[in-house]
Order: sequence, then C-alpha cells, then structure tokens
Amino acid sequence: MSTLIRGGTIVTSETSYRADILCDDGMIKAIGEGLETPSGAEVVDAGGQYVMPGGIDPHTHMQLPFMGTVASEDFETGTAAALAGGTTQIIDFVIPDPQEPLMDAYRKWRGWAEKSVADYGFHVAITWWDDTVHRDMGLLAENEGVNSFKHFMAYKNAIMVSDEMMLASFARCRELGAMATVHAENGEMVYYLQQELLAKGITGPEGHPQSRPPEIEGEAANRAIRTAQVLQTPIYIVHVSCKESLEAITRARLEGQRVFGECLAGHLLIDDSVYYNEDFEFAAAHVMSPPFRPKDHQRELWRGLQSGNLQTTATDHCCFCAPQKAAGRDDFTLIPNGTSGVEDRMAVLWHHGVNSGKLTMNEFVKVTSTNAAQIFNIHPRKGSISVGADADIVVWDPEMTRTISAKTHHQNIDFNIFEGMEVKGSPSHTISQGKVVYKDGQLNVVKGAGRYIKRPTYNPYFDALDKRRKETAPRKVSRPAQAAE
Amino acid sequence: MSTLIRGGTIVTSETSYRADILCDDGMIKAIGEGLETPSGAEVVDAGGQYVMPGGIDPHTHMQLPFMGTVASEDFETGTAAALAGGTTQIIDFVIPDPQEPLMDAYRKWRGWAEKSVADYGFHVAITWWDDTVHRDMGLLAENEGVNSFKHFMAYKNAIMVSDEMMLASFARCRELGAMATVHAENGEMVYYLQQELLAKGITGPEGHPQSRPPEIEGEAANRAIRTAQVLQTPIYIVHVSCKESLEAITRARLEGQRVFGECLAGHLLIDDSVYYNEDFEFAAAHVMSPPFRPKDHQRELWRGLQSGNLQTTATDHCCFCAPQKAAGRDDFTLIPNGTSGVEDRMAVLWHHGVNSGKLTMNEFVKVTSTNAAQIFNIHPRKGSISVGADADIVVWDPEMTRTISAKTHHQNIDFNIFEGMEVKGSPSHTISQGKVVYKDGQLNVVKGAGRYIKRPTYNPYFDALDKRRKETAPRKVSRPAQAAE
Amino acid sequence: MSTLIRGGTIVTSETSYRADILCDDGMIKAIGEGLETPSGAEVVDAGGQYVMPGGIDPHTHMQLPFMGTVASEDFETGTAAALAGGTTQIIDFVIPDPQEPLMDAYRKWRGWAEKSVADYGFHVAITWWDDTVHRDMGLLAENEGVNSFKHFMAYKNAIMVSDEMMLASFARCRELGAMATVHAENGEMVYYLQQELLAKGITGPEGHPQSRPPEIEGEAANRAIRTAQVLQTPIYIVHVSCKESLEAITRARLEGQRVFGECLAGHLLIDDSVYYNEDFEFAAAHVMSPPFRPKDHQRELWRGLQSGNLQTTATDHCCFCAPQKAAGRDDFTLIPNGTSGVEDRMAVLWHHGVNSGKLTMNEFVKVTSTNAAQIFNIHPRKGSISVGADADIVVWDPEMTRTISAKTHHQNIDFNIFEGMEVKGSPSHTISQGKVVYKDGQLNVVKGAGRYIKRPTYNPYFDALDKRRKETAPRKVSRPAQAAE
Amino acid sequence: MSTLIRGGTIVTSETSYRADILCDDGMIKAIGEGLETPSGAEVVDAGGQYVMPGGIDPHTHMQLPFMGTVASEDFETGTAAALAGGTTQIIDFVIPDPQEPLMDAYRKWRGWAEKSVADYGFHVAITWWDDTVHRDMGLLAENEGVNSFKHFMAYKNAIMVSDEMMLASFARCRELGAMATVHAENGEMVYYLQQELLAKGITGPEGHPQSRPPEIEGEAANRAIRTAQVLQTPIYIVHVSCKESLEAITRARLEGQRVFGECLAGHLLIDDSVYYNEDFEFAAAHVMSPPFRPKDHQRELWRGLQSGNLQTTATDHCCFCAPQKAAGRDDFTLIPNGTSGVEDRMAVLWHHGVNSGKLTMNEFVKVTSTNAAQIFNIHPRKGSISVGADADIVVWDPEMTRTISAKTHHQNIDFNIFEGMEVKGSPSHTISQGKVVYKDGQLNVVKGAGRYIKRPTYNPYFDALDKRRKETAPRKVSRPAQAAE
Repeated sequence: MSTLIRGGTIVTSETSYRADILCDDGMIKAIGEGLETPSGAEVVDAGGQYVMPGGIDPHTHMQLPFMGTVASEDFETGTAAALAGGTTQIIDFVIPDPQEPLMDAYRKWRGWAEKSVADYGFHVAITWWDDTVHRDMGLLAENEGVNSFKHFMAYKNAIMVSDEMMLASFARCRELGAMATVHAENGEMVYYLQQELLAKGITGPEGHPQSRPPEIEGEAANRAIRTAQVLQTPIYIVHVSCKESLEAITRARLEGQRVFGECLAGHLLIDDSVYYNEDFEFAAAHVMSPPFRPKDHQRELWRGLQSGNLQTTATDHCCFCAPQKAAGRDDFTLIPNGTSGVEDRMAVLWHHGVNSGKLTMNEFVKVTSTNAAQIFNIHPRKGSISVGADADIVVWDPEMTRTISAKTHHQNIDFNIFEGMEVKGSPSHTISQGKVVYKDGQLNVVKGAGRYIKRPTYNPYFDALDKRRKETAPRKVSRPAQAAE
Repeated sequence: MSTLIRGGTIVTSETSYRADILCDDGMIKAIGEGLETPSGAEVVDAGGQYVMPGGIDPHTHMQLPFMGTVASEDFETGTAAALAGGTTQIIDFVIPDPQEPLMDAYRKWRGWAEKSVADYGFHVAITWWDDTVHRDMGLLAENEGVNSFKHFMAYKNAIMVSDEMMLASFARCRELGAMATVHAENGEMVYYLQQELLAKGITGPEGHPQSRPPEIEGEAANRAIRTAQVLQTPIYIVHVSCKESLEAITRARLEGQRVFGECLAGHLLIDDSVYYNEDFEFAAAHVMSPPFRPKDHQRELWRGLQSGNLQTTATDHCCFCAPQKAAGRDDFTLIPNGTSGVEDRMAVLWHHGVNSGKLTMNEFVKVTSTNAAQIFNIHPRKGSISVGADADIVVWDPEMTRTISAKTHHQNIDFNIFEGMEVKGSPSHTISQGKVVYKDGQLNVVKGAGRYIKRPTYNPYFDALDKRRKETAPRKVSRPAQAAE
Repeated sequence: MSTLIRGGTIVTSETSYRADILCDDGMIKAIGEGLETPSGAEVVDAGGQYVMPGGIDPHTHMQLPFMGTVASEDFETGTAAALAGGTTQIIDFVIPDPQEPLMDAYRKWRGWAEKSVADYGFHVAITWWDDTVHRDMGLLAENEGVNSFKHFMAYKNAIMVSDEMMLASFARCRELGAMATVHAENGEMVYYLQQELLAKGITGPEGHPQSRPPEIEGEAANRAIRTAQVLQTPIYIVHVSCKESLEAITRARLEGQRVFGECLAGHLLIDDSVYYNEDFEFAAAHVMSPPFRPKDHQRELWRGLQSGNLQTTATDHCCFCAPQKAAGRDDFTLIPNGTSGVEDRMAVLWHHGVNSGKLTMNEFVKVTSTNAAQIFNIHPRKGSISVGADADIVVWDPEMTRTISAKTHHQNIDFNIFEGMEVKGSPSHTISQGKVVYKDGQLNVVKGAGRYIKRPTYNPYFDALDKRRKETAPRKVSRPAQAAE
Repeated sequence: MSTLIRGGTIVTSETSYRADILCDDGMIKAIGEGLETPSGAEVVDAGGQYVMPGGIDPHTHMQLPFMGTVASEDFETGTAAALAGGTTQIIDFVIPDPQEPLMDAYRKWRGWAEKSVADYGFHVAITWWDDTVHRDMGLLAENEGVNSFKHFMAYKNAIMVSDEMMLASFARCRELGAMATVHAENGEMVYYLQQELLAKGITGPEGHPQSRPPEIEGEAANRAIRTAQVLQTPIYIVHVSCKESLEAITRARLEGQRVFGECLAGHLLIDDSVYYNEDFEFAAAHVMSPPFRPKDHQRELWRGLQSGNLQTTATDHCCFCAPQKAAGRDDFTLIPNGTSGVEDRMAVLWHHGVNSGKLTMNEFVKVTSTNAAQIFNIHPRKGSISVGADADIVVWDPEMTRTISAKTHHQNIDFNIFEGMEVKGSPSHTISQGKVVYKDGQLNVVKGAGRYIKRPTYNPYFDALDKRRKETAPRKVSRPAQAAE
C-alpha cells in the first residue's frame, strides 16, 4: 500500500518547497507538485504543514541493564514513543560488561531489539580491551553494520576506559573507518569528588551535579579530542552539556579537526536547580550524567547548534522510575543515571529553537535528523527527503499547541523532565517505512516492524583524513653511516 | 534537445551516489540509475567522474570602470572563461558613482551583461545616500531580483561609505530582506598609511600590502558585524583574506550571529612575497584589495572553510592588463586593483582542498556552489542536483592533470596569478542550462545565452531573525505620573 | 611635622611585610621594623592593619560642565571625599568645547582645581582638530605634565571624534610619548538607537541601556585598539563595562599589543535592572555611560582584573543630583550622565575582591593604585611604599564593618549607587603628603593643599614600541629602471 | 666586607631610577643617590649600566641521574656558570625513584648540592604514591622549606604519574600550601607514537619531535589545569613550549584561575628544524622534552611573556655530552633528554626581548627573576632590589656585545644550542650574597658558598583560594524524612 503526502511544504536540511510525496515499498517513490493519487493509497493531508525527514535520535538506551536495575523503557515501547514524537530511527548502544565478548553482547542486544516498531541501529561500547575485542570490532564493522564505537571516560571501577585503551581503540576505529565516540567526563575526578562529598555528609541528589562539575567534562572532551587529533581520526562527543566541552570542540574545529558534538534536548532547557529541590523524587528523577547545568550553559549550547559546532541533538533516553531511583535515597552515587526524552526532543527543539528564531527550519532538520544520518553514514537513505530514500517522514503541524506531561506521554516512565511545558508545533503524522504509524495522537504500530539498519564504515571524513595522513606522514632523515672511530 | 549524463558519481553538498541525470528544457528532469536515453539526446559519458552542481562565483567585476580604466574582461569573455572552469553562474556588481541614481547604474550594467554566455546576477553597491537611494533599494529588491547590497568600507574620497550611511543602508536591507555585504577595510587607515608610505618614498607595489595590513581588514569586518548585530540583520563579508577578519566572523558566529564569509581562491594560495618581486609588472599584476597576505593567513582561511566559518569561495575577478597596471608605476595607489580567477577557482580549490584531504568532496560542492546559492537565495534552482533545478552541472575528471597558464587560459588578461601551478582534477564537461557548453577543452557557447537570474529576498535567516527581534524587542517601563511638588 | 606609622603590615603591589613607616616633608623617609619616633611626630597605630599606597582614581569629573548643567561635586569636596575613602590622588579631565583652544580649557580647569585638598592631575580631551590642537598637545605634554589625551567615540553632535581625527591625534600622542585614551562607544549607533527608541515611545531611563548595548562598546574598543595597533602606540580604554570590550582588549593583549583597560567600581557590582525600576529618580540616578550591564558581565570584569587584562579601577565620579537628573524626565537622552564613587571604590573593591578571594591583597594594591601610577608614569612617586615616594598612604582596617549610604558619605550628591551595601574593610587613616588627613571617620583637610602633579611623557612602553617600530619599519624594494620600449 | 654599586640605573620589575646600592652581610643595606663608600668596600662602577635583581632559574637539573647516565654539569660548575650569566639562584629538582622514600632522595640531593657556589632550592618530584609519600610531603613542606612538588605526566614506565596519583598529590599540595607543578606531556600518547615511529624505521633524532607533537603537551597541560581547578589550588606548568599548552593556560587565566607558566630560553628561539639535521650529534644534542617546535610557536611564547600569561623563564638546564647522547644513536628514545642554558638565559632574553622591544626592561626583570621569587614565595628576599633583600644583583652592560659559544661558555657541556648567536647586553658584574663573584669575564667563586634557601609555604594565592573555597563550599539540601508508605 502506498501513501501520498499532499499539499505540504517540504523542509529539508537545505531548502523548503511545496511538493507532494509518494511513498511505496517503504521508500519515497516520487516528489512533485500535484502528484496523482495511486489507487488504494492512503492520503495524508499536509496542508499548512511542514513535511520533514523523520527524526533520528542517535543516543538512546532501551532496556539497559545499569547500576543494578534495568531501564524501564524497552525497544518496543521506546521506539513507539519515538514515533509519537516524530522520531523514526534510534541508534542505541550495545554495552558489554568488562570481559564479556563483544559479539555476545551484540547478539544479546540485537535480540532485545527485535520487537522494535521503528528502525534502529547500534553503537557498540568498548569497555575493556584485549585481542578479541580488537578482532570483534573488525567483525562488527565489516559484517554487522556497526560503524561507531563508544568509550566511557567516566564510571570508574565499572566501564571506564583508560587512556591506553582509548588510544588503542581509537586507532582500531581509524583502521576500520568507524567513528570513535566518547562519553566525556573525567572518571577519576568524579570518583574523587563523590568520595569527598559523601565524606562531608552530602548524600542527596544535590551531590550529583557537585561531583560532576563542567570542568570535568571539558577536561575529558579535550583529552579525547587530542587523542583523535594525534591519530588523525574523526571523533564524536556525545551529550555535550556545558560550555567547557563545547569550547574544546570548537577550538578543535576552528583548527580544522573533524570533531562532532551532540547535545541533548534536556541540557538545552533544564538547569541544575532541579537537584536542589527538596523533594527527593523530583531531584532524583533528574539524575543523569552529565547533569543539568547552570543556566548560562544553555545559551552556549544553543549557540553551538546555531554556529554548527554542535551537529546533532539526542536524548540519552534511559528511563528509570521512582522505585528504581529510590536505590540512591541515602547515597546519590547509587541513583540510576538516566531519564526520558525520545518522544519530546523534536517538539522541544522546534518550540524553543524555531519558534524563537534561534534556528531556521532547515537547521532544525539538520540537527534533528540529517546531520546524524551523515555522520553515521546512512544518508541519504535516512535523514533526507529524496527519491529512493526510506520513507521515514514527519508531518509537522506548526500550529498545534500541547502541554508535555508524563500523564499523556507514550514513554514508559513515571516522570517527564519537561512536565508542564507548553509547546507549539508537533507531529500530526509520522510515517515510518512508508506507513502512517502515528496520526491524530494515535499510534498504529506493529511489534517487530522496526528493522536493524546497517551502517557502512568510511563516511566521507575518513577519505579526507586518509589523504591528510599521507600529506603529513612521518619524516625520516637519511644520515651518513658513522665513521668508525 | 536533451542531455543525458551517464555513469558518473553525483556529488552534492550532502551526499555522493551513482546515478544518471537527464536534462531537458534547461532543467534536470530525472535522476536515477540506468536512465534511458531519449532519442536525440546528447550523451555525456561521466564514467569514473564526479557530477556536481556547476560552480557559482558570487564575486566578479566584468568590464568594471575603475580607477580611470575599464576591466579587460567583459561579460561575454568572462562568463565563457567561467564555463571553461566549471563555473556556471556569476554574481557581479552594479557600482553606481556617487550621486548616480541606482536604477540608472543598474540598467547600465544589465545592458552590458546581455552578451553573457552563462547565467548571472547582480549585487548593487551603495556608494552614497539620500532618499532616492533608499527608494531605489526597494525597487531593486522588490521588482528586479536584487537581494544583496554591497558597502565599500575602503576607497576614501571615492566610493567609501561612512558609518552613518552604512547603518542606514543596513537598516534598509533588513527591511527589504536583502543581504548586506561589505568590503571590509578601514579606508581612513588605508589612506593614512598610503600617505605615510609615499612620503617615505615607498612608491612601488610593495607599498600596497604595507598600506593595507590585516588589522585594517579585521577592524572593518568587526565594525560591520557589530553594526549588523545591533540591527539583528544578517551580513556577508566579501573576500576575507586574513585571520583578523576571520576571527571577527568566527567570534560573531560562535555567539549565534548570522554572519557569512567569502574567501578568494587567490588568498588561499598566494602570499604577499609577490609584492616584493623586483619586476614591477609581476608585482603590480598582483595588486588587488585586500592584498595577498603572509603565509600563515592561508592556513587560517583553509581552516575557516573546514570549520564552516567561511561559507563561499569567489574570485573578485577583475582583470587589468600590464599597460593598465602601468598607470601606477610611480605611485602604487594608482595601480588598478584587481586580477583574474573565475576560470581557475574550481580546479585550484579541488587540487589544494580535496586532493590534500582538507575538504571532503561534499564540502567542495558547498563552498564552490551550494552555500552561495543558499545565502543568495537561489537554491535549489542553483547549487543543487535535484529534479527541477536548473541543469547547470560540471562533470569533473579527478584524474585530469594540467598546468594553469595565461598562455592557455580563456580569461581576457595577460597574466595568471596561478601561472605554472599543476592541478589534478578539472572539468571534462560543463553543462549550462542543460546544454554541453564546454567539452574536451573546447567551448561551445552562444553570445547572449546567459540569463539574468532574479534572486528573491528573505532567505531563511530573515525569518529567524524576525522572530529573534520579536523576542528581544525594546522594553518600556510604565512609571506612575509624578506627583506635583 | 613628621608622621610615624607603627606596627602595621605593609602591603604593596608585590609583597607584604611587617614594618613601620616614617613620613616627613611629604615623603616617605624610612621604612623598617622598630623605627624610632622622632620628637613631635604624630604616631599612627597600625597594629592589626594593612598599610598600603593611597588609592589613585584615574577617572573623575569634578565640577564638569556637561549636558547643560555642572557636576555637583567640586574639586574641594571631591578630593576630600576621595581621602575619606583612602584615595589620595585623582586624575581628572580637561574637556575643551569644540573649537575652544586647548590651553584655554587647560588653564580654566587648573584654576578650578586649585582648591583641591588632595593631589590631582589632568588628562586632556581632544574634541576637535586643527593645527593649533596639534600644537597645543605638544605644549601640554612638554611643559605642563600632561601625558595622556582622551578621545570620546560617543556623544555625536557634541564631543565625538571622527575616525580621521582619532588617527591624527593618536599619531600625535605617539610622537609625544603620551598615552591615547578612549571612551569606547560607537556614537553613530547610539544615536541611531536613541532615535529609534524615542520614536517607539521609550522615553524613560530604561531607554538608556537599550540605546547603548554592549556590542556598541565592543565595536568602539576594537576600532580604537586597531587604530593604535596600526600606529604601534599604546592605548588605554576607560571604563570597560562589558565582556565585548574586554574581549577586544584581551585579544589584543594576547597578541602582544600594549593595551590597557580600566573598570569602574560600579560596573563590577551593579547590573542593568536598576534602569527598569519604576521610580524615575532611582533609575535616572544610575544613568551613566556606559550603562550598568546584565549580571554576567560582572563576572567577566572581575576575571579581567584577576587575569591582568584590566589594570586599573576608577569611578568616573561625576555627580548630578535629582533636580539635575530631572531634566531628562521625558527624554532619557537628556538625563545628565554620571554618578558618584570616588569615596567608595577602595572599600567596595576590598570587600568584594579581597574578602571573597577574587583578588590577593597585592592585586588590590595594583588595581587601585600602582598600575595607574605606572601607566600614567608617576610611579614610584605615587602608587608605591618606598623611601623617597610621596607619603600618600592608607591604613586599612580589615575588620571595620560599615554600611555605605548617601546619608553618611562625604560626596556632594544626594544618591549612592552602593546604598545599603555592608562592607568589611575600610580606611582607619588616610595620609596625604605625609599628614593624617582622615582619622576615625573625621576629615582634617586644608583647602588648596592638593598639588597639581606633572606626569612625564614616555612611560617604559614607549621605549619598547620605538624599538618595535624600528624592527618593523616599512620596506622598500629597489627596482631596475624600466628600459625604454 | 661590603660592596658599593655606584652610578648605575636600578631596574626593578616595577620601575627604573638612578641610585647607588650598598651591600653588606650578604644583604642590601642602603639604596640612594650618592651613597658614601664605606672604608674597605669594593666599589663597582655601574655607570651607563643597569643594576637588576640577579636572575633566578627555577628549572635546572644538575648532575641528574637520568636515562642510564648522569648529567655532566654538577652543582658547582652549574651554579658557577649561572653566575657568569647573571643568574644568582637556581631551583633544582629532587627526583626520587619510584618506591624511593622522599626524604632519602631529598637528603641525597641536598648532599650533592653542598658544593654549590650560588644559592639554590629544590622542588621535589612525586613519582609514586603511598602513605609515606603523603607524610613526607608534609615533612618537606613544614620543616625543609620545600613549597613545590613536581609531577611528570610523561615518561611512561618510569616516573610518570597516573591521573589518580596526580589528584591525590595536588590535594596534598593544596593542604600544605605548596605549589603543584607539572611537566605536561601525555605520556601514553608519547609512548604510542614512539612505538609507531620505531616500527616504521624512524630511529633517528627526528623521531623525537614527531613522537611528542604539540597537541600532546596541550592535552596534558589542560588536564593538569582542570585537575587544579577542581581542587581550587594553584598550578605551575614548567617549560611551556607551544601554543597548545599556552592556550590551555591562557584560557584558564582568563577565567580567573590561578595558573602559572614557565618557558625556556631555548623554546623562544630555536625551532624543530634542528632535529632534521643530517649530523646525528647536532640533532641529538638538541633532544630534550618538550622538543623545540616549529617557528610559529616562538611568536606565541613571546606573546605569552608580553601578555603576562607566561610569568617565568627558565632553562631546564640538564647537560649531556656527545658520548652520552650517542646511547640513542640507533633509537631516539634512548637519547638522554636535556641540554644547557643556565648561563645564557639572561643574555638571550635581553637581546631578543628587550633590544627588539618585545619586553620592557621591567618586564625583563619580572620574567627572569621577580615573578619566580613571588610564585615560589621567596620575594622580596630574592628577586627584588630593596633594603633587607639578599644582595644578589647583576650589573648589566647594555652595550657589551659577544658571541655565545661552547668554546667559551662556563657550562660543563660540549655543545651550546645558541652557538654563534651574537648578543648585545650581558653582565659586567654579578654580585652574590653581596660579593662580586663575576667581573670582566672572570669568575671568583667559592665552592660551597651557595646556601640552601628555604621557601615558605602559602604564597598569597593560597590565602585567596582559601577564601574562594569558602565561598563555593559544597551545598547540602535538607530534605524531610520520607513518610512511611
């Protein structure tokens, strides 16, 4: 069955124009003014609305086992919530335990994700190192469509990488044409401050931001960027939350280095006052890493998006409900880190970005979809409105006004960090693989309809960096053999 | 007659993929793998080649009357040379004399340009100010497709604008949704240094760069940017030649201001040592403003392109031959300012940018074509490979190696600043309005075939800035009336 | 009569140590532990206190005729208030009317200042230009001890300089070894915004900051700095109020340029919310230029002092009482610009700078006294505790706590911008010319006791810049005469 | 016996003036014009010369056991060479082997240094960590006058600290009021690159700079600075050699952090081309870490000194002769790292700094002497010309011209990196502890005359930071006990 989106204004990362779109076989078959309606086609009336590439959330953690519990949102509910918010693909993370074979972890996650209702992919985390890890990275990149590997610079005594491991793994990424990505927080310093705060009797959620100040993120971001610079390989910093790490990225980019930065919807809009709330549940519900920051960081993150120094927006969607958060009632270091957002990102970005004039509509498309598709090398299949692309599309009603609430959201969590926020602009329809899966507030999804999207290695930056490395290859000086003395 | 481009790899600003292109009626009619050849179609074999949007040179001065002479390159020869180099559109400048009605000047230039063999547009310079200028800016923007106005901050006692004029004109630009552009050099300082140098007996071309040091450009760029910031209107800085002005642009962009920067092929590759050459003709041939800079500026300009802080490349193509340059033999301030480049830009950028790994191919397309089309609001008609776009296309042979020389170039000037430079990568075919106008080194152009391209006002940044202005509108405090005392 | 300061800790710009000080003949005669008390000497018990160089306020306007009225504080009351606050010298401004001969204005101000009770000097403003101004600058520098000239980049249609004048005057300063100083605000933009705001009906004091946004100051600062860079002469920016101008200064200093910046006590502590107060008198009392800024600028100014990019603190003390401010009740552009501070600067800086750990005590001395003395070339006579120096000394009680108020201050103005601020740390004694002129809250001053302090030209930076200019002198190329053709 | 320095111009970090100096008992007894000559006093005719505080070299390694050999310069010859160059104190390093008790190492170095002919002090390196190290740091700080501890971030598998150790040691430094100092190079990356280069057959000295690119230094500097920021303790970066680490320092200083940077005479003047010399001995003689850098870094370092972002100059004097360097003939990683400079620093800084106008004479005194004395808390005893200060003085003949050469220098090494450099300006006399120890090119020193100078903890920055920490102490939220549910 085909779908015809009629009468809307197509908005892409580069341009806006009036045209209809015909979807068939899961793909965009035609784009043009006044397309004919094939018999039996579902017609979406997009009059007065914007028709944009479906959102890509490159950072989610569905049903993640973490800190002694498991995230409440699974791949089915999570991808459904995504669709309700206009996001048609997620890229989640395989996170092996230290010593767990990468391929085992990968297969486990693939299994969990089979029930997804929208397309998905996986980054794979490097949490330990030996020859098998080195080998399995190759298998994943070459056979399994994994073109990005993540490195946690925080979480000491758990999944934190050492500098030595990070260097080895980045070098392997370079070799494979895979993107190195990092969670940038200096885990040693976090640990030090956690112990210091606990020793001072600061055990509540307010200890969380105080143990992870922005300079700790700035340090780690810079260290990872310098590591990538030495190796001349691209790097992607996940959830940039503060001006310190943005500055590290910006500095590098101004020097021509290929560095990419992601920011989360939450960090753009919520500040660290939430942790000082007297209600533990409220405060704990906001515990995630990096934490929310003082207000002036938000301005910097928006500027990062405007100037192009941050390229993507994500959510780090990782849901834990109040009973789970309660594990850390007496010790903030035990509060499971994470919160929701996969459903809200697009609307929140539109309202605070586009409606306020901070971003053009084209920039909105870039930072919610196209840039992620390019960086993770699935463009133009994803992130574009073009003939032959996957028909993952959101029809955006710029006049729809609604209030975000945990009471009404589709996410499987009892809290919403944007609770009560009124937003103008939301999806009227979401089309996934050419089918209308969300319309008039109703989901119409099929368990397991989501596909695993393989991502090829060697995005265009690798080719350029290969050439750079040739131009800057190590020099050897020929010296005359020394005369016998 | 239609044209089929077969077997190439399409490279756009965003992506690369294998497909054929069918051109008809001057437009792209179809894109797809294995397109059928319509009867009578000319087939271009693009096997092993890249098929890209034709270049747009947003800064040329064909047959410009300037400094007592007239540029040797006219619109016919100039647009032909452009096509030979893969550039399918130029944006030239109407430069009224002070007190000359804008519409008169505009019509004069339109007349001169009628013989063009490729498409063209016009920026209009604001060189004086009164109510008629204000009015005529409106006529040009609303009726004539002029969406950009230029301001010379240099050339004291000639076409230099005062700060007061610049402010008034920028405000008018904002009102019209037209881009304010500036030649950024502090004309007062240039004049001061010129007099000082002449007084010291420095009369040769070496006086030229010494009278226009980079800080003078940096100052003016910053002043113009601040003016635009106060008005909350976008601004475009032409021919950014040095790190001082790039820094001003970058600073503003990092703060979220909508500032755009153009750099010239020449400034990316040639340094100021040319002015100290003992051969007057050689030195004088390089006299243009801003001058070529010490080598370390080149690295910064490349980085500007890489980081996206410079968006466009141009040439300021403005040809004067040796006998014309001789007017300044005894006084460098009398050497007509300008040199060529419209034919060489694409190849030079490819060779030094793409081959060296500084730029990806997609970035090459952005900075030679797409970004200019977007900023000057003719995208996706120009600067894109998409169905419905003008069929202005370059087929690029990445293996073709040739040596640039005034002896062989198509430009009407007796000198080439890139003389002797070997470049790998050049156009095998250029298609203009769907027709093959350059093939195997041969031009096949028709005088007058070039069209004047109207450019609509209000590119997407204006809409965003309108919203910003609403958000930041002046505040008024209500105060109780003062009691009688 | 001599004075012995006994038992205190001497704090200089470089070091702190326990010693007594003997003052005689207006000078410091001896420094040492356990000095003997000469017969008849007044003994100051400085036990538990800090003994520091008296403050220098390099920016005051006593009895200034301005905007149709005259500042309420005259040289007698003003210098007395200064002494009460620990400031032992002011540098005020001679501001000729356009067309008024400089020497006439200078003599007028010298006359007004004769009643001063503490030492003083004069900067002279350049408000117009012709050969006599050029000549008189020489007379002032060579004969009258004026080593600094000020340029107002704001106040269009009044005392604003053009870029051409500024260039000429800076060149003259360089020639004379005199410091060029500027009030950095772009007067054209201010005027434009004033008209725009008035046209929109914004006539109250809230129009003042809105017509002078920070970018306008940043622009002007950068323009002045670039002008000085071209000429290779040092420059001093008065009342840096915002991060935009601080950034311009910092950028230049990081490049090795000799740029100096002054900030005002008020700008460090007061934000622009005062202008939105519903009470006109309150709001108007704060009208000064540049205006107070949003809060985040204060952090930047403190950082400027900490990092050494701002060297001096001043007050721009220029008092107008409520009836004077009322002139602008219906038009904010008519409110006389200025407020007080000469008495409060030292205590406010100590409390918010030293007590909070932002500044060391040595840095406090630098930014309140020593740096000004060095830049304006009266060090070590002023701004130092050394044998042979003028005995201008403040004995500082770090435990004294008091509340600043217009009700108790010595300044001749009916308002205090620091009203109600509690400060810990204040002068217990002020010694001027070796005499105790302020003790236990009581002034004991003599009208006319203040002396005009001549300031020699050529501070050490001029010598260094002379050498730089030689190293970077213009280059001339010898070219063979052209053969006849 | 006393010494009278007559007729010179005293130049201090703050001012210059004509006066005589009387030295007695090793101290400055009087300063004044026309001092009387005590009977028996040695009179130094300083007419036409500058009289300045003797230099302090805060970074030397006399007779260091390192990389399998021992530095050829011992404390006697090294301090003698220092005096010949106008440097009257060194601060050397105690470097314990891992597991070696700190006090043992300290006593060993104290023993070696007893033969010194000029005053000296010791930084102590932290090369391992356990409770005894923690304890011994306290003993050294409290009893032994050690107020600075050094951390090597490079030299993996030898003396490199981990991030965890660095954090613990910095925290201990803060507690003790001792300055944390770092050698900033990322040792993991150095090791990685060394292995990679060797594997590629690059075994010569050119491998040295290629294995230690500037970004590796920039990374480490930033990491150390961030660590200090988290702890709110001051930090000092030794031998800043490149713009990457200078930028890290500058960024932090602009944010008000208390960071100090040292640069070496060699890095200011010598570039990395030396390593590509075909003569192994020449190339190897320059091997030190960090290596010499490409030319453009030198400009940045000078600017760092001019802007005050670098405060001190040193030499890292650590001499190895050709036979020692030969150990690395087949493997650059085995070349002992180090070269000379203690004798040349002052002359080289004067010639290239003061003569060229880059630095004023007062700035010269700051960066060669006073700043080091302040940072390491021995001011005003050292680094000042004031009554009561140690009589460590250099009489500087600005007209003396000489050529630096290993043939004539006093340093115990067969090579001089400044070989053949002509400098104008050198010491005519050096006075140490009030005695003329160098005159007319002749040393007149006494073995063992040098004294160990204890340095008190808690320089003024610690007091300020203590106050900052109080202002920014961790916050605890009181939450109501949770109701039973």
